[in-house]
Amino acid sequence: MPERKHTGNDPVFVLADPQMGENIGAVARAMMNCGLIHLRLVRPRDGWPNERADAMAAGAFEKMPPVPVFDTVQEAVADCHFVLATTARPRDMNKPVFTARAAAAQSHVMQHAGQRTAFLFGAERAGLTNDDVALTHGIITIPVNPDFSSLNLGQAALLVAYEWYQAQDATEPYQTHDSENPPAPQEKFEELITRLESELEAHRFFRNPDQRPSMVRNLRNMMIRARMSEQEVRTFHGIISALTGQKN
Amino acid sequence: MPERKHTGNDPVFVLADPQMGENIGAVARAMMNCGLIHLRLVRPRDGWPNERADAMAAGAFEKMPPVPVFDTVQEAVADCHFVLATTARPRDMNKPVFTARAAAAQSHVMQHAGQRTAFLFGAERAGLTNDDVALTHGIITIPVNPDFSSLNLGQAALLVAYEWYQAQDATEPYQTHDSENPPAPQEKFEELITRLESELEAHRFFRNPDQRPSMVRNLRNMMIRARMSEQEVRTFHGIISALTGQKN
Repeated sequence: MPERKHTGNDPVFVLADPQMGENIGAVARAMMNCGLIHLRLVRPRDGWPNERADAMAAGAFEKMPPVPVFDTVQEAVADCHFVLATTARPRDMNKPVFTARAAAAQSHVMQHAGQRTAFLFGAERAGLTNDDVALTHGIITIPVNPDFSSLNLGQAALLVAYEWYQAQDATEPYQTHDSENPPAPQEKFEELITRLESELEAHRFFRNPDQRPSMVRNLRNMMIRARMSEQEVRTFHGIISALTGQKN
Repeated sequence: MPERKHTGNDPVFVLADPQMGENIGAVARAMMNCGLIHLRLVRPRDGWPNERADAMAAGAFEKMPPVPVFDTVQEAVADCHFVLATTARPRDMNKPVFTARAAAAQSHVMQHAGQRTAFLFGAERAGLTNDDVALTHGIITIPVNPDFSSLNLGQAALLVAYEWYQAQDATEPYQTHDSENPPAPQEKFEELITRLESELEAHRFFRNPDQRPSMVRNLRNMMIRARMSEQEVRTFHGIISALTGQKN
Protein backbone atom coordinates (compact mmCIF):
# COMPACT_ATOMS: atom_id res chain seq x y z
CA MET A 1 0.00 0.00 0.00
CA PRO A 2 1.40 3.42 -0.83
CA GLU A 3 1.93 5.80 2.01
CA ARG A 4 -1.23 7.74 2.64
CA LYS A 5 -1.16 11.44 2.00
CA HIS A 6 -1.26 13.67 5.02
CA THR A 7 -4.09 16.09 5.01
CA GLY A 8 -4.25 19.36 6.90
CA ASN A 9 -6.78 18.04 9.37
CA ASP A 10 -4.99 14.82 10.33
CA PRO A 11 -5.32 14.18 14.07
CA VAL A 12 -2.93 15.67 16.59
CA PHE A 13 -1.56 13.93 19.68
CA VAL A 14 -1.23 16.27 22.64
CA LEU A 15 0.92 15.29 25.63
CA ALA A 16 0.04 17.26 28.75
CA ASP A 17 2.91 17.68 31.24
CA PRO A 18 5.05 14.83 29.89
CA GLN A 19 7.95 14.05 32.20
CA MET A 20 10.45 11.66 30.64
CA GLY A 21 11.90 12.40 27.24
CA GLU A 22 12.02 8.65 26.56
CA ASN A 23 8.24 8.55 26.68
CA ILE A 24 7.88 11.49 24.30
CA GLY A 25 10.18 9.64 21.90
CA ALA A 26 8.20 6.41 22.26
CA VAL A 27 4.99 8.30 21.45
CA ALA A 28 6.59 9.84 18.36
CA ARG A 29 7.76 6.43 17.15
CA ALA A 30 4.31 4.91 17.70
CA MET A 31 2.69 7.82 15.86
CA MET A 32 4.99 7.49 12.84
CA ASN A 33 4.43 3.71 12.82
CA CYS A 34 0.79 4.57 12.27
CA GLY A 35 1.23 7.45 9.84
CA LEU A 36 0.47 10.24 12.31
CA ILE A 37 2.81 13.23 12.25
CA HIS A 38 1.30 15.97 14.40
CA LEU A 39 2.65 15.85 17.96
CA ARG A 40 2.19 18.77 20.40
CA LEU A 41 3.56 19.17 23.91
CA VAL A 42 2.15 21.09 26.87
CA ARG A 43 4.66 22.09 29.57
CA PRO A 44 7.24 19.29 29.01
CA ARG A 45 9.05 18.94 32.34
CA ASP A 46 12.55 18.73 30.90
CA GLY A 47 12.13 21.30 28.15
CA TRP A 48 12.20 20.86 24.41
CA PRO A 49 13.97 19.58 22.33
CA ASN A 50 15.11 16.61 24.38
CA GLU A 51 17.99 14.24 23.55
CA ARG A 52 16.40 11.26 25.27
CA ALA A 53 13.28 11.74 23.19
CA ASP A 54 15.39 11.72 20.03
CA ALA A 55 17.14 8.52 21.08
CA MET A 56 13.85 6.66 21.62
CA ALA A 57 12.08 7.96 18.54
CA ALA A 58 14.01 5.76 16.05
CA GLY A 59 14.11 8.65 13.60
CA ALA A 60 10.44 9.61 13.85
CA PHE A 61 11.11 13.30 14.56
CA GLU A 62 13.01 13.68 11.28
CA LYS A 63 9.83 12.71 9.44
CA MET A 64 7.52 14.95 11.47
CA PRO A 65 6.98 18.68 11.30
CA PRO A 66 8.57 20.51 14.28
CA VAL A 67 6.88 19.68 17.58
CA PRO A 68 5.27 22.82 19.03
CA VAL A 69 5.22 23.48 22.77
CA PHE A 70 2.25 25.14 24.50
CA ASP A 71 1.59 26.61 27.93
CA THR A 72 -1.92 25.22 28.24
CA VAL A 73 -4.00 22.34 26.90
CA GLN A 74 -6.55 24.89 25.68
CA GLU A 75 -3.97 26.46 23.37
CA ALA A 76 -2.75 23.09 22.15
CA VAL A 77 -6.22 22.05 20.98
CA ALA A 78 -7.43 25.47 19.85
CA ASP A 79 -7.75 24.52 16.15
CA CYS A 80 -9.32 21.10 16.80
CA HIS A 81 -12.99 20.18 16.63
CA PHE A 82 -13.15 16.88 18.50
CA VAL A 83 -11.02 16.46 21.60
CA LEU A 84 -10.69 13.10 23.35
CA ALA A 85 -8.89 12.37 26.61
CA THR A 86 -7.16 9.01 26.98
CA THR A 87 -7.68 8.21 30.64
CA ALA A 88 -9.36 5.84 33.04
CA ARG A 89 -12.98 6.77 33.42
CA PRO A 90 -13.42 9.53 36.02
CA ARG A 91 -16.05 8.64 38.60
CA ASP A 92 -17.59 12.04 39.01
CA MET A 93 -17.86 13.32 35.45
CA ASN A 94 -20.67 12.89 32.97
CA LYS A 95 -18.72 12.33 29.78
CA PRO A 96 -19.13 9.95 26.84
CA VAL A 97 -16.68 7.03 26.88
CA PHE A 98 -15.25 5.46 23.72
CA THR A 99 -13.16 2.37 23.23
CA ALA A 100 -9.98 3.13 21.26
CA ARG A 101 -11.53 1.42 18.23
CA ALA A 102 -14.75 3.42 18.37
CA ALA A 103 -12.80 6.65 18.91
CA ALA A 104 -10.69 5.90 15.83
CA ALA A 105 -13.77 5.29 13.71
CA GLN A 106 -15.37 8.51 14.95
CA SER A 107 -12.17 10.45 14.30
CA HIS A 108 -12.22 9.37 10.65
CA VAL A 109 -15.86 10.38 10.32
CA MET A 110 -14.93 13.81 11.69
CA GLN A 111 -11.91 14.07 9.41
CA HIS A 112 -13.91 13.28 6.29
CA ALA A 113 -16.18 16.15 7.28
CA GLY A 114 -13.17 18.48 7.50
CA GLN A 115 -12.87 18.37 11.28
CA ARG A 116 -9.77 17.69 13.30
CA THR A 117 -9.37 15.34 16.26
CA ALA A 118 -7.02 15.91 19.19
CA PHE A 119 -6.03 12.85 21.23
CA LEU A 120 -4.98 14.10 24.66
CA PHE A 121 -2.65 12.13 26.95
CA GLY A 122 -1.73 13.00 30.54
CA ALA A 123 1.49 12.88 32.51
CA GLU A 124 3.08 9.53 33.29
CA ARG A 125 2.12 9.33 36.94
CA ALA A 126 -0.62 11.80 37.62
CA GLY A 127 -2.52 11.44 34.35
CA LEU A 128 -4.88 14.18 33.22
CA THR A 129 -6.41 16.58 35.71
CA ASN A 130 -10.20 16.71 35.99
CA ASP A 131 -10.00 20.22 34.52
CA ASP A 132 -8.18 18.86 31.47
CA VAL A 133 -10.74 16.09 31.06
CA ALA A 134 -13.57 18.64 31.29
CA LEU A 135 -12.13 20.36 28.18
CA THR A 136 -12.86 17.32 26.04
CA HIS A 137 -15.81 15.89 24.14
CA GLY A 138 -15.18 12.40 25.38
CA ILE A 139 -12.92 9.88 27.03
CA ILE A 140 -11.04 6.98 25.49
CA THR A 141 -10.75 4.05 27.85
CA ILE A 142 -8.75 1.24 26.25
CA PRO A 143 -10.28 -2.12 27.18
CA VAL A 144 -7.62 -4.18 28.95
CA ASN A 145 -7.37 -6.74 31.75
CA PRO A 146 -9.07 -5.06 34.75
CA ASP A 147 -6.71 -6.91 37.08
CA PHE A 148 -3.62 -5.40 35.40
CA SER A 149 -4.81 -2.32 33.59
CA SER A 150 -1.94 0.14 33.87
CA LEU A 151 -0.60 1.14 30.43
CA ASN A 152 2.38 3.42 30.15
CA LEU A 153 2.28 6.52 27.96
CA GLY A 154 4.02 4.86 25.02
CA GLN A 155 1.69 1.84 25.13
CA ALA A 156 -1.47 3.96 25.33
CA ALA A 157 -0.34 6.17 22.45
CA LEU A 158 0.58 3.12 20.36
CA LEU A 159 -2.83 1.53 20.83
CA VAL A 160 -4.73 4.72 19.97
CA ALA A 161 -2.51 5.36 16.92
CA TYR A 162 -2.78 1.72 15.86
CA GLU A 163 -6.57 1.80 15.94
CA TRP A 164 -6.54 5.03 13.95
CA TYR A 165 -4.35 3.39 11.30
CA GLN A 166 -6.43 0.20 11.16
CA ALA A 167 -9.60 2.22 10.62
CA GLN A 168 -8.28 3.43 7.26
CA ASP A 169 -6.12 0.47 6.26
CA ALA A 170 -7.24 -1.87 3.50
CA THR A 171 -4.95 -4.86 4.16
CA GLU A 172 -6.73 -8.15 3.53
CA PRO A 173 -7.23 -9.88 6.90
CA TYR A 174 -6.09 -13.22 5.50
CA GLN A 175 -3.97 -13.82 2.41
CA THR A 176 -3.18 -17.37 1.37
CA HIS A 177 -0.72 -16.67 -1.43
CA ASP A 178 1.38 -13.79 -2.62
CA SER A 179 1.50 -12.68 -6.23
CA GLU A 180 4.76 -14.52 -6.90
CA ASN A 181 3.39 -17.87 -5.70
CA PRO A 182 -0.22 -18.13 -6.80
CA PRO A 183 -2.09 -21.36 -6.15
CA ALA A 184 -1.86 -23.92 -8.95
CA PRO A 185 -4.93 -24.10 -11.18
CA GLN A 186 -7.19 -26.99 -10.26
CA GLU A 187 -6.20 -29.04 -13.34
CA LYS A 188 -2.60 -29.22 -12.09
CA PHE A 189 -3.78 -30.43 -8.70
CA GLU A 190 -6.07 -32.95 -10.45
CA GLU A 191 -3.16 -34.36 -12.49
CA LEU A 192 -1.14 -34.76 -9.30
CA ILE A 193 -3.84 -36.49 -7.28
CA THR A 194 -4.70 -38.75 -10.21
CA ARG A 195 -1.08 -39.78 -10.61
CA LEU A 196 -0.69 -40.31 -6.86
CA GLU A 197 -3.78 -42.51 -6.78
CA SER A 198 -2.56 -44.63 -9.70
CA GLU A 199 0.92 -45.01 -8.19
CA LEU A 200 -0.62 -46.03 -4.88
CA GLU A 201 -2.80 -48.53 -6.74
CA ALA A 202 0.27 -49.94 -8.50
CA HIS A 203 2.08 -50.20 -5.17
CA ARG A 204 -0.89 -51.98 -3.53
CA PHE A 205 -1.63 -49.19 -1.05
CA PHE A 206 -5.40 -49.89 -1.29
CA ARG A 207 -5.66 -53.33 0.31
CA ASN A 208 -9.40 -53.17 0.87
CA PRO A 209 -11.29 -52.23 -2.36
CA ASP A 210 -14.40 -51.22 -0.39
CA GLN A 211 -12.48 -48.55 1.50
CA ARG A 212 -10.66 -47.21 -1.55
CA PRO A 213 -13.20 -44.48 -2.44
CA SER A 214 -13.24 -43.00 1.06
CA MET A 215 -9.46 -43.29 1.36
CA VAL A 216 -9.04 -41.40 -1.89
CA ARG A 217 -11.47 -38.71 -0.73
CA ASN A 218 -9.59 -38.32 2.55
CA LEU A 219 -6.27 -38.12 0.74
CA ARG A 220 -7.70 -35.53 -1.64
CA ASN A 221 -9.07 -33.51 1.27
CA MET A 222 -5.71 -33.51 3.02
CA MET A 223 -3.76 -32.62 -0.11
CA ILE A 224 -6.09 -29.84 -1.23
CA ARG A 225 -5.83 -28.08 2.12
CA ALA A 226 -2.19 -27.34 1.30
CA ARG A 227 -3.32 -25.17 -1.65
CA MET A 228 -0.11 -25.89 -3.56
CA SER A 229 1.49 -23.50 -5.99
CA GLU A 230 2.52 -24.82 -9.42
CA GLN A 231 6.09 -25.14 -8.19
CA GLU A 232 4.91 -27.16 -5.20
CA VAL A 233 2.88 -29.45 -7.48
CA ARG A 234 6.02 -30.04 -9.54
CA THR A 235 7.97 -30.75 -6.36
CA PHE A 236 5.39 -33.29 -5.28
CA HIS A 237 5.57 -35.02 -8.67
CA GLY A 238 9.32 -35.22 -8.07
CA ILE A 239 8.72 -36.80 -4.65
CA ILE A 240 6.51 -39.47 -6.20
CA SER A 241 9.10 -40.15 -8.91
CA ALA A 242 11.87 -40.43 -6.33
CA LEU A 243 9.96 -42.74 -4.00
CA THR A 244 8.90 -45.02 -6.88
CA GLY A 245 12.39 -45.15 -8.37
CA GLN A 246 11.35 -43.27 -11.54
CA LYS A 247 13.57 -40.69 -13.14
CA ASN A 248 12.14 -37.20 -13.31
CA MET B 1 -15.99 -6.64 33.71
CA PRO B 2 -14.75 -9.53 35.83
CA GLU B 3 -11.37 -10.94 35.03
CA ARG B 4 -11.70 -13.72 32.52
CA LYS B 5 -10.86 -17.19 33.66
CA HIS B 6 -7.72 -18.70 32.26
CA THR B 7 -8.22 -21.95 30.53
CA GLY B 8 -5.61 -24.61 29.94
CA ASN B 9 -5.39 -23.85 26.26
CA ASP B 10 -4.92 -20.09 26.49
CA PRO B 11 -2.37 -18.90 23.91
CA VAL B 12 1.34 -18.89 24.61
CA PHE B 13 3.81 -16.21 23.56
CA VAL B 14 7.16 -17.64 22.54
CA LEU B 15 10.21 -15.37 22.30
CA ALA B 16 12.97 -16.89 20.17
CA ASP B 17 16.50 -15.73 21.06
CA PRO B 18 15.45 -12.62 22.97
CA GLN B 19 18.41 -10.39 23.74
CA MET B 20 17.54 -7.59 26.17
CA GLY B 21 15.85 -8.39 29.45
CA GLU B 22 14.00 -5.08 29.20
CA ASN B 23 12.18 -6.36 26.14
CA ILE B 24 11.21 -9.62 27.81
CA GLY B 25 9.78 -7.57 30.67
CA ALA B 26 7.89 -5.29 28.28
CA VAL B 27 6.37 -8.35 26.59
CA ALA B 28 5.29 -9.76 29.97
CA ARG B 29 3.67 -6.46 30.92
CA ALA B 30 1.82 -6.23 27.59
CA MET B 31 0.63 -9.83 27.95
CA MET B 32 -0.73 -9.27 31.47
CA ASN B 33 -2.40 -6.04 30.30
CA CYS B 34 -4.31 -8.27 27.92
CA GLY B 35 -4.96 -11.20 30.25
CA LEU B 36 -2.36 -13.54 28.74
CA ILE B 37 -0.14 -15.39 31.19
CA HIS B 38 1.83 -18.03 29.29
CA LEU B 39 5.26 -16.73 28.24
CA ARG B 40 8.01 -19.07 27.03
CA LEU B 41 11.61 -18.28 26.13
CA VAL B 42 13.94 -19.96 23.67
CA ARG B 43 17.67 -19.42 24.27
CA PRO B 44 17.47 -16.03 26.06
CA ARG B 45 20.85 -14.39 25.47
CA ASP B 46 21.38 -13.19 29.04
CA GLY B 47 19.96 -16.23 30.81
CA TRP B 48 16.89 -16.51 32.96
CA PRO B 49 15.64 -15.12 35.35
CA ASN B 50 16.73 -11.60 34.48
CA GLU B 51 16.61 -8.54 36.74
CA ARG B 52 16.10 -6.09 33.91
CA ALA B 53 13.10 -8.07 32.75
CA ASP B 54 11.64 -7.89 36.26
CA ALA B 55 12.15 -4.13 36.40
CA MET B 56 10.27 -3.55 33.14
CA ALA B 57 7.44 -5.98 33.81
CA ALA B 58 5.64 -3.76 36.36
CA GLY B 59 4.81 -6.82 38.43
CA ALA B 60 3.55 -9.01 35.59
CA PHE B 61 5.79 -11.98 36.41
CA GLU B 62 4.29 -12.27 39.90
CA LYS B 63 0.91 -12.90 38.27
CA MET B 64 2.20 -15.40 35.71
CA PRO B 65 3.19 -19.02 36.11
CA PRO B 66 6.98 -19.52 35.98
CA VAL B 67 8.44 -18.73 32.55
CA PRO B 68 9.95 -21.90 31.04
CA VAL B 69 13.12 -21.81 28.94
CA PHE B 70 13.62 -24.09 25.92
CA ASP B 71 16.54 -24.97 23.67
CA THR B 72 14.53 -24.94 20.46
CA VAL B 73 11.40 -23.35 19.05
CA GLN B 74 10.11 -26.84 18.24
CA GLU B 75 10.14 -27.78 21.93
CA ALA B 76 8.55 -24.51 22.95
CA VAL B 77 5.53 -25.05 20.70
CA ALA B 78 5.30 -28.83 21.06
CA ASP B 79 1.88 -28.80 22.79
CA CYS B 80 0.35 -26.13 20.52
CA HIS B 81 -1.95 -26.68 17.53
CA PHE B 82 -1.75 -23.38 15.68
CA VAL B 83 1.59 -21.62 15.46
CA LEU B 84 1.90 -18.10 14.06
CA ALA B 85 5.09 -16.15 13.43
CA THR B 86 5.00 -12.38 13.93
CA THR B 87 7.32 -11.12 11.22
CA ALA B 88 7.52 -9.12 8.05
CA ARG B 89 6.40 -11.22 5.14
CA PRO B 90 9.26 -13.39 3.83
CA ARG B 91 9.67 -13.04 0.07
CA ASP B 92 10.48 -16.63 -0.72
CA MET B 93 8.01 -18.59 1.41
CA ASN B 94 4.52 -19.70 0.55
CA LYS B 95 2.75 -19.10 3.83
CA PRO B 96 -0.66 -17.65 4.75
CA VAL B 97 -0.50 -14.09 6.09
CA PHE B 98 -2.87 -12.75 8.75
CA THR B 99 -3.37 -9.27 10.09
CA ALA B 100 -3.07 -9.18 13.89
CA ARG B 101 -6.85 -8.77 14.10
CA ALA B 102 -7.59 -11.76 11.88
CA ALA B 103 -5.02 -13.87 13.73
CA ALA B 104 -6.68 -13.02 17.04
CA ALA B 105 -10.09 -14.01 15.73
CA GLN B 106 -8.72 -17.28 14.37
CA SER B 107 -6.94 -18.01 17.65
CA HIS B 108 -10.25 -17.74 19.53
CA VAL B 109 -11.93 -20.07 17.03
CA MET B 110 -9.14 -22.58 17.66
CA GLN B 111 -9.35 -22.14 21.42
CA HIS B 112 -13.08 -22.75 21.49
CA ALA B 113 -12.36 -26.03 19.70
CA GLY B 114 -9.85 -26.99 22.40
CA GLN B 115 -6.75 -26.05 20.41
CA ARG B 116 -3.89 -23.89 21.52
CA THR B 117 -2.21 -21.02 19.67
CA ALA B 118 1.46 -20.11 19.92
CA PHE B 119 2.43 -16.58 18.92
CA LEU B 120 6.11 -16.65 17.98
CA PHE B 121 8.33 -13.56 18.09
CA GLY B 122 11.94 -13.32 16.90
CA ALA B 123 15.04 -11.65 18.26
CA GLU B 124 15.18 -7.85 18.40
CA ARG B 125 17.54 -7.32 15.48
CA ALA B 126 17.63 -10.45 13.40
CA GLY B 127 13.98 -11.45 13.73
CA LEU B 128 12.94 -15.03 13.08
CA THR B 129 15.03 -17.29 10.88
CA ASN B 130 13.43 -18.75 7.78
CA ASP B 131 13.67 -22.15 9.46
CA ASP B 132 11.66 -20.84 12.42
CA VAL B 133 9.05 -19.35 10.10
CA ALA B 134 8.78 -22.66 8.23
CA LEU B 135 7.67 -24.29 11.51
CA THR B 136 4.52 -22.21 11.59
CA HIS B 137 1.03 -22.36 10.10
CA GLY B 138 1.03 -18.72 9.19
CA ILE B 139 2.51 -15.28 9.53
CA ILE B 140 1.15 -12.24 11.34
CA THR B 141 2.09 -9.01 9.63
CA ILE B 142 0.78 -6.03 11.58
CA PRO B 143 -0.47 -3.35 9.19
CA VAL B 144 1.48 -0.17 9.86
CA ASN B 145 2.87 2.80 7.93
CA PRO B 146 5.01 1.22 5.17
CA ASP B 147 7.32 4.23 5.29
CA PHE B 148 8.09 3.67 9.01
CA SER B 149 7.20 0.08 9.71
CA SER B 150 9.74 -1.04 12.30
CA LEU B 151 8.06 -2.14 15.53
CA ASN B 152 10.15 -3.17 18.50
CA LEU B 153 9.50 -6.46 20.31
CA GLY B 154 7.42 -4.87 23.08
CA GLN B 155 5.28 -2.96 20.60
CA ALA B 156 4.64 -6.01 18.40
CA ALA B 157 3.73 -8.17 21.40
CA LEU B 158 1.42 -5.46 22.76
CA LEU B 159 -0.47 -5.17 19.48
CA VAL B 160 -0.93 -8.94 19.10
CA ALA B 161 -1.99 -9.29 22.76
CA TYR B 162 -4.31 -6.28 22.47
CA GLU B 163 -6.07 -7.75 19.44
CA TRP B 164 -6.44 -11.06 21.25
CA TYR B 165 -8.06 -9.28 24.21
CA GLN B 166 -10.36 -7.17 22.03
CA ALA B 167 -11.60 -10.27 20.23
CA GLN B 168 -13.15 -11.54 23.47
CA ASP B 169 -13.97 -8.25 25.17
CA ALA B 170 -17.55 -7.07 25.44
CA THR B 171 -17.00 -3.39 26.28
CA GLU B 172 -19.60 -1.18 24.60
CA PRO B 173 -17.80 0.86 21.91
CA TYR B 174 -19.57 4.06 22.97
CA GLN B 175 -21.21 4.79 26.31
CA THR B 176 -22.94 8.09 26.84
CA HIS B 177 -23.70 7.81 30.55
CA ASP B 178 -22.56 5.76 33.47
CA SER B 179 -24.95 4.09 35.86
CA GLU B 180 -24.58 6.83 38.48
CA ASN B 181 -25.50 9.60 36.04
CA PRO B 182 -28.24 8.28 33.78
CA PRO B 183 -29.82 10.66 31.28
CA ALA B 184 -32.85 12.54 32.57
CA PRO B 185 -36.18 11.15 31.41
CA GLN B 186 -37.61 13.10 28.52
CA GLU B 187 -40.32 14.76 30.66
CA LYS B 188 -37.64 16.50 32.76
CA PHE B 189 -35.96 17.80 29.64
CA GLU B 190 -39.37 18.94 28.32
CA GLU B 191 -40.08 20.90 31.52
CA LEU B 192 -36.71 22.61 31.20
CA ILE B 193 -37.06 23.56 27.55
CA THR B 194 -40.64 24.76 28.11
CA ARG B 195 -39.54 26.93 31.01
CA LEU B 196 -36.59 28.28 29.05
CA GLU B 197 -38.84 29.16 26.12
CA SER B 198 -41.32 30.99 28.34
CA GLU B 199 -38.57 32.89 30.14
CA LEU B 200 -37.07 33.87 26.81
CA GLU B 201 -40.53 35.01 25.68
CA ALA B 202 -40.94 37.09 28.83
CA HIS B 203 -37.51 38.62 28.27
CA ARG B 204 -38.28 39.46 24.62
CA PHE B 205 -35.70 37.12 23.15
CA PHE B 206 -37.99 36.35 20.18
CA ARG B 207 -38.10 39.66 18.38
CA ASN B 208 -39.45 38.28 15.10
CA PRO B 209 -42.57 36.11 15.61
CA ASP B 210 -42.12 34.44 12.21
CA GLN B 211 -38.74 33.06 13.20
CA ARG B 212 -39.78 31.93 16.66
CA PRO B 213 -40.73 28.33 15.74
CA SER B 214 -37.44 27.64 13.99
CA MET B 215 -35.47 29.36 16.76
CA VAL B 216 -37.14 27.15 19.33
CA ARG B 217 -36.44 24.04 17.28
CA ASN B 218 -32.78 25.00 16.95
CA LEU B 219 -32.53 25.71 20.66
CA ARG B 220 -34.17 22.37 21.43
CA ASN B 221 -31.77 20.57 19.05
CA MET B 222 -28.75 22.16 20.70
CA MET B 223 -29.95 21.45 24.23
CA ILE B 224 -30.98 17.84 23.59
CA ARG B 225 -27.55 17.00 22.22
CA ALA B 226 -26.14 17.52 25.71
CA ARG B 227 -28.21 14.54 26.96
CA MET B 228 -28.43 16.02 30.45
CA SER B 229 -28.71 13.97 33.60
CA GLU B 230 -31.41 14.88 36.12
CA GLN B 231 -28.81 16.72 38.18
CA GLU B 232 -27.75 18.71 35.14
CA VAL B 233 -31.39 19.60 34.36
CA ARG B 234 -31.69 20.90 37.93
CA THR B 235 -28.48 22.87 37.49
CA PHE B 236 -29.82 24.44 34.32
CA HIS B 237 -33.04 25.43 36.08
CA GLY B 238 -30.80 27.08 38.65
CA ILE B 239 -28.96 28.98 35.89
CA ILE B 240 -32.26 30.30 34.51
CA SER B 241 -33.37 31.32 38.00
CA ALA B 242 -30.08 33.09 38.63
CA LEU B 243 -30.03 34.95 35.32
CA THR B 244 -33.65 36.07 35.69
CA GLY B 245 -33.18 37.17 39.29
CA GLN B 246 -35.52 34.49 40.68
CA LYS B 247 -34.75 32.64 43.86
CA ASN B 248 -34.28 28.93 43.50
